Amino acid sequence: MTAYDKLMDHARATRALEQVAGRLGWDQETMMPPGAANQRAEESAAMEAVLHARRTDPQVGEWLEAAAPEGDVAAAQLRLIRRAYDRATKVPADLATEIARVTSRSHSQWAAARADVDWPAFVPVLEEVLRLKREEAAALSGGGDLYDALLDDFEPGATGESLAEMFGALRPRLVALREKILDRPAPEPLRGRFDEAAQLRLTHTVAEAFGYDFQRGRIDLAVHPFSSGSGHDVRITTRTDPKDPFGALYSTIHEVGHGAYELGIDDGYLLTPLGHGVSMGVHESQSRIYENQIGRSRAFCGWLYGRMVETFGEMNLGGPDAFYAAVNRVESGFIRTEADEVHYNLHILLRFDLERLLMAGDLAVADLEDAWDARFEADFGRKVEKASDGVLQDVHWAVGLFGYFPTYTLGNVYAGCLMKALREAVPDLDAALAEGDTSPATDWLRENLQQHGGLRGPRETIAKACGFEPSEGPLLDYIEAKFGALYGL
Amino acid sequence: MTAYDKLMDHARATRALEQVAGRLGWDQETMMPPGAANQRAEESAAMEAVLHARRTDPQVGEWLEAAAPEGDVAAAQLRLIRRAYDRATKVPADLATEIARVTSRSHSQWAAARADVDWPAFVPVLEEVLRLKREEAAALSGGGDLYDALLDDFEPGATGESLAEMFGALRPRLVALREKILDRPAPEPLRGRFDEAAQLRLTHTVAEAFGYDFQRGRIDLAVHPFSSGSGHDVRITTRTDPKDPFGALYSTIHEVGHGAYELGIDDGYLLTPLGHGVSMGVHESQSRIYENQIGRSRAFCGWLYGRMVETFGEMNLGGPDAFYAAVNRVESGFIRTEADEVHYNLHILLRFDLERLLMAGDLAVADLEDAWDARFEADFGRKVEKASDGVLQDVHWAVGLFGYFPTYTLGNVYAGCLMKALREAVPDLDAALAEGDTSPATDWLRENLQQHGGLRGPRETIAKACGFEPSEGPLLDYIEAKFGALYGL
Repeated sequence: MTAYDKLMDHARATRALEQVAGRLGWDQETMMPPGAANQRAEESAAMEAVLHARRTDPQVGEWLEAAAPEGDVAAAQLRLIRRAYDRATKVPADLATEIARVTSRSHSQWAAARADVDWPAFVPVLEEVLRLKREEAAALSGGGDLYDALLDDFEPGATGESLAEMFGALRPRLVALREKILDRPAPEPLRGRFDEAAQLRLTHTVAEAFGYDFQRGRIDLAVHPFSSGSGHDVRITTRTDPKDPFGALYSTIHEVGHGAYELGIDDGYLLTPLGHGVSMGVHESQSRIYENQIGRSRAFCGWLYGRMVETFGEMNLGGPDAFYAAVNRVESGFIRTEADEVHYNLHILLRFDLERLLMAGDLAVADLEDAWDARFEADFGRKVEKASDGVLQDVHWAVGLFGYFPTYTLGNVYAGCLMKALREAVPDLDAALAEGDTSPATDWLRENLQQHGGLRGPRETIAKACGFEPSEGPLLDYIEAKFGALYGL
Repeated sequence: MTAYDKLMDHARATRALEQVAGRLGWDQETMMPPGAANQRAEESAAMEAVLHARRTDPQVGEWLEAAAPEGDVAAAQLRLIRRAYDRATKVPADLATEIARVTSRSHSQWAAARADVDWPAFVPVLEEVLRLKREEAAALSGGGDLYDALLDDFEPGATGESLAEMFGALRPRLVALREKILDRPAPEPLRGRFDEAAQLRLTHTVAEAFGYDFQRGRIDLAVHPFSSGSGHDVRITTRTDPKDPFGALYSTIHEVGHGAYELGIDDGYLLTPLGHGVSMGVHESQSRIYENQIGRSRAFCGWLYGRMVETFGEMNLGGPDAFYAAVNRVESGFIRTEADEVHYNLHILLRFDLERLLMAGDLAVADLEDAWDARFEADFGRKVEKASDGVLQDVHWAVGLFGYFPTYTLGNVYAGCLMKALREAVPDLDAALAEGDTSPATDWLRENLQQHGGLRGPRETIAKACGFEPSEGPLLDYIEAKFGALYGL
């Protein structure tokens, strides 16, 4: 066996164990009996210890020295193995353990602080998390930029500087658009009560319309929707609210997008480093293009309106146009996860700028709430009245996920680029969508992007699929055109 | 840290990983999308490789040399750790791998042979499995009895010789009883169609009646009912048949018995070697006493009859006596898993005698079918007409489980002993059972047996709970009295 083959065997078993650990997480959110939580923590910790030992196994370092890959695919596999090994071995074991311990505790401290609307109680907790993450970033960066070192975990190759430039171009146009929209009369929202079992049946219909492969996946209920797994076992979850069927429907479409990416990867990459989505940003581009550019399009909404009427009877919305307007209703709100396409990225930009300041040492945690509230008022035109609507709303920082937020907006930007290319490649897409047939879109995405998994870097993956270098332009054009038409601007 | 503490930390993480691997098995039978089977095989193999490496870790051997446990509990933990380490290290790695490979393949070869009713096609497969298992037994036994070496995996401390003596006393009385019963008119069976969703609701009611803890467990559908897990996460499965609600009800009670044993173990033993059932025989004693001695008693059947009428309306059975007779209807059949309390152990005795001959080299696989058929006719008074009703019916030998069968009957024998002791300890048990209250029985079992987990050896566990040495007498007395009364003998 060559060193390369040994590396691949090792990586394959590690990937298989990662799938097991991931499914343990799925089980915890969907199936686990409530009384099993403490035992589960020990089980998960034991799996993490096994994985950590494998990821830092000195044999991997030796094989990497000796490996001579042949061809592009082998070179890409090796690049990802080397990258994972370097990152795993750069962080001292004691620090990794300390971060795991502190963030496990800070997760519940954050939940308590949010429930109590008690930001001061959370300040020392977040200070400690930030201190440890800066230490980790220093170990990873080797003297380079701290924020970039963490960002690289989620979006290999991206830098805070390049994202700041892109996001800087988004912000003024989005702020201007939201101001114009909110001066216009709001469309009627959907009203009523919607049977939750019927909602679930409809999410299955919609998942099928988006080509979700139930032979290699399933949909279950969970408190927070998510997608889990790679290869031949990619499960998604959803949730229902009797007053808001859009929540179940669009979170399902979103997760189907994530799932389709994993399920669409070339079978030859199964359980290898190439066999999963290349970055969080590219992943989010798939969930967002399914959810927004396709799922919230006028054409698809026409078909969905028919399914809604079949399922729930006539609604307070007179027809597909009013339905489309309700689906895309723009509202200024405090909460990121409830935001529409116009506001969503403004939420992210706020977080991105603040977390870069925190990481650079230019903003103290003690001053974070004031900075948040000032920025929110500037961009959203409203005052934050309680921390649970502001700086305490997201779990990410509490558990050390600095550098994660920008991948949401990067995903939206990438989705904008992909939709532009897709519209050019499939000029009659809307005719199919109006029949509930998404296959011209999903086939194009699988063929041009999903199948390649981790073969190329994230930005290169998008550029290759689109035929042009990604930028924020197509997303802004799409948003301005869509909402301009909807609001008669 | 002392060597003992290191051993316990290691054992605890290993137990946690075993729980993860076990839950992967549960998932495979209940939740896994069908297209995930091949990937799952790799995931399971990766987990097994991790577990094998831990079980044979030379550090464990060193710590065992150095460990000085204090007290009975520590001594018992150490005994089980030593036992597991010795067994894991005695079998050469190549042989273990070969057995895993061959039995994985032979499982599907058996299924095909059974479907095709083609015993000759399966003979060479079983010969190979037997050859490998005899080799494994030789490695384990160190010159001792081959059968005992394998039996010891399932029932530590038991020997083929001692079981043969016990089973020899069972056989003539059971054969005589079944002949007398089959001369009598058979009671009316339950007839009709029973809504499967309603059956599932009733299995939940019945599981609750037996104290199953849904905070630490759940019930799902699977092709074959089973119980899975230890500690705080013990799940069971059931199946429904529209023509036979007894299948769902009594397989559920059976699995609740297994589950109650695991859930009843002292919390101080969580994720330690003592923290699971001590042997297959003692496990089966719990499932059987729940299912048969309690669940099929006249008192409990009276309560269950009421629940059946509530759920399904009036049945073709006129009242609780006829219901009790239908639940306990004796029928001579070819299939072990469908057998009643009178016939069940005769099925096991047949397999036990034949597998001992195979293991000793006194019966060739080529002659196994003839030996099976002759013995079946002698004990059951019927000729086997196809191998799928005879020698091909069970999966056990195909996957190398020699020495497993006798634990079923040993469990029945132990259940007989426990019921005798329980009846003496709780004289008014039937009054509670008639109200659907099993707690006097389940509390007694938890207090006297379940909580102790692996603290004592299997036979000692039963003796300690009963206050007398276990023997086949109480089971025979119970069966003869119950069925003598039912059939007016």
